[in-house]
Amino acid sequence: MNRQIHLVERPKAAPTHEHFNLVETSIPKLGDQEVLIHNLYLSVDPYMRGRMSDAKSYVPPFKLNEKLVGGVVGEVVESNSDQFQTGDVVTGMLGWEEYSIAPEKEIRKVNPELAPVTTSLGILGLTGLTAYFGLIDICQPKEGETVVVSGAAGAVGSVVGQIAKIKGARVVGIAGSDEKIDYIKNELGFDEAINYKTTENIQEALEKACPNGVDAYFDNVGGEISDAVLNLLNKFARIAQCGAISSYNKVDDQGPRIQTKLIKSSALIKGFIVSDYAERFKEGAEQLGQWLQQGKLKYEETITEGFENIPDAFLGLFEGNNLGKQLVKIGEPQHAKL
Amino acid sequence: MNRQIHLVERPKAAPTHEHFNLVETSIPKLGDQEVLIHNLYLSVDPYMRGRMSDAKSYVPPFKLNEKLVGGVVGEVVESNSDQFQTGDVVTGMLGWEEYSIAPEKEIRKVNPELAPVTTSLGILGLTGLTAYFGLIDICQPKEGETVVVSGAAGAVGSVVGQIAKIKGARVVGIAGSDEKIDYIKNELGFDEAINYKTTENIQEALEKACPNGVDAYFDNVGGEISDAVLNLLNKFARIAQCGAISSYNKVDDQGPRIQTKLIKSSALIKGFIVSDYAERFKEGAEQLGQWLQQGKLKYEETITEGFENIPDAFLGLFEGNNLGKQLVKIGEPQHAKL
Repeated sequence: MNRQIHLVERPKAAPTHEHFNLVETSIPKLGDQEVLIHNLYLSVDPYMRGRMSDAKSYVPPFKLNEKLVGGVVGEVVESNSDQFQTGDVVTGMLGWEEYSIAPEKEIRKVNPELAPVTTSLGILGLTGLTAYFGLIDICQPKEGETVVVSGAAGAVGSVVGQIAKIKGARVVGIAGSDEKIDYIKNELGFDEAINYKTTENIQEALEKACPNGVDAYFDNVGGEISDAVLNLLNKFARIAQCGAISSYNKVDDQGPRIQTKLIKSSALIKGFIVSDYAERFKEGAEQLGQWLQQGKLKYEETITEGFENIPDAFLGLFEGNNLGKQLVKIGEPQHAKL
Repeated sequence: MNRQIHLVERPKAAPTHEHFNLVETSIPKLGDQEVLIHNLYLSVDPYMRGRMSDAKSYVPPFKLNEKLVGGVVGEVVESNSDQFQTGDVVTGMLGWEEYSIAPEKEIRKVNPELAPVTTSLGILGLTGLTAYFGLIDICQPKEGETVVVSGAAGAVGSVVGQIAKIKGARVVGIAGSDEKIDYIKNELGFDEAINYKTTENIQEALEKACPNGVDAYFDNVGGEISDAVLNLLNKFARIAQCGAISSYNKVDDQGPRIQTKLIKSSALIKGFIVSDYAERFKEGAEQLGQWLQQGKLKYEETITEGFENIPDAFLGLFEGNNLGKQLVKIGEPQHAKL
């Protein structure tokens, strides 16, 4: 028997438990070159909200009454593939389900001896690569420049800030709790940090934190925080538009128009998703692994326990409940040694 | 005696005649390496509205109770410079005044035999260079792509569309009168043209005009027209943010937030002003001159007559009164042969 979580209704505004349903199903028979995986950790990510809508996009929407799909780490429990055997730890874009069947070409092995396997969903996976390419390719931080990061204590933002520090920039993080502020300043070494939930005037706080203006902005949140940052852009500023979590659950999100601000500063905004950089993943993963081994990158994980709590963990992203990467642990390994 | 037009009050919203004043002054004595110029044609441009405000910008604001500054073509009537003599036609960033004194290094000669001297303020001057660099460097149109241009019958937009056609793109122009629509379609060869003032549903009209989506957008206007274009962006679309004339006179211009749209299409917006490309002006001017000689570029000028009508001509830009480049003829040549 298998358990899955299905999307049963498309959220118009904020998603709730009513949009999800836990369904019991059977496990289909393994085909050739296929592998049966016992899922151990799932990744829940803000971008998944976008796939719950059926608006035009370059990533197809999730289908109604089918399992949701996201990053998973699991152990192989049965294999019709020469490349995988029982006990191998693997990762791929699998389902919100306890057991997944995957063609061999859609998964890759994770070596549990190099780093905790959960890092393949976080700092050494798509999350880390998102931070790396958005910052390096779009923000292009230079020594001494001021880089602002929103969602700074989140899975992506926390890596962005650390890489910007490695590149010699002055880094200002924006996050939503004193615990997060403490973490990015005192653990990760950000130069300044602003708690947007307790700061009365975010614009003034930003001006104080960025006395030389803003040269680059890695944006995960959009909304009023970005309105304030965009007032401080230096000439030729670069903005990596990675996410806009403050907009995802709004039906009609209005704000100040930004075109004039971009003209005044000859600034650039570039939207992206990590798959835009698929051809350079090897470069990014090698660099991130090297920095991690050298102790130059730290990471946090917020791990929710229990299959039935997947929707809770996902919905919590929009409340800012997570520090670092939000994962859900849904199984104990039976064959793999972690 | 000289006449100047001064800025006497900074407009908060739309500028009116009350913000300007016609002042009679004397002409100061010529210094070394300076030239006295009798001004013949002035350029009035939407970007000048920005310099009338004192908000932070990388272009300094106009000073109150001093002459306004813009592009001018005039004839040399007195010279303390070895490089210029009486009768030479010159251009530079001079004043809204009948006579200007300029250091020799701030003006350059115009050859009246190569092209009408007014083109040095338009298609062969900063206007043409704005179109060239925004399109070539930011929009990067490719054969068969769809390029949308707003303000398409204006001085910049009309050049943008023609260069995009030279590059093999399908060009859709947006403008505000039937005369302009007729001009860009039938004179300039745009593939489609939309009159935003008479079209009931601009979004539907754009979708019809861009059945394959929008690959590049050269934006002069911002506002609701851009809202509609941004809903049609193809993957990796490029937007050159040249102007936002619909926003300039608004105190608090709100609209739909665009971050999510940029993410969905991995799209880029880049603000710019032409001086960002100062090091490449020679390249741009040579290319524009070549296309003009080959008959590949056409241009229109709207010439208002009379010094006292400069404010009218400027204010008319915001009503869309001009077809092509808006100039003001303020003098007849006394020494130069045009």
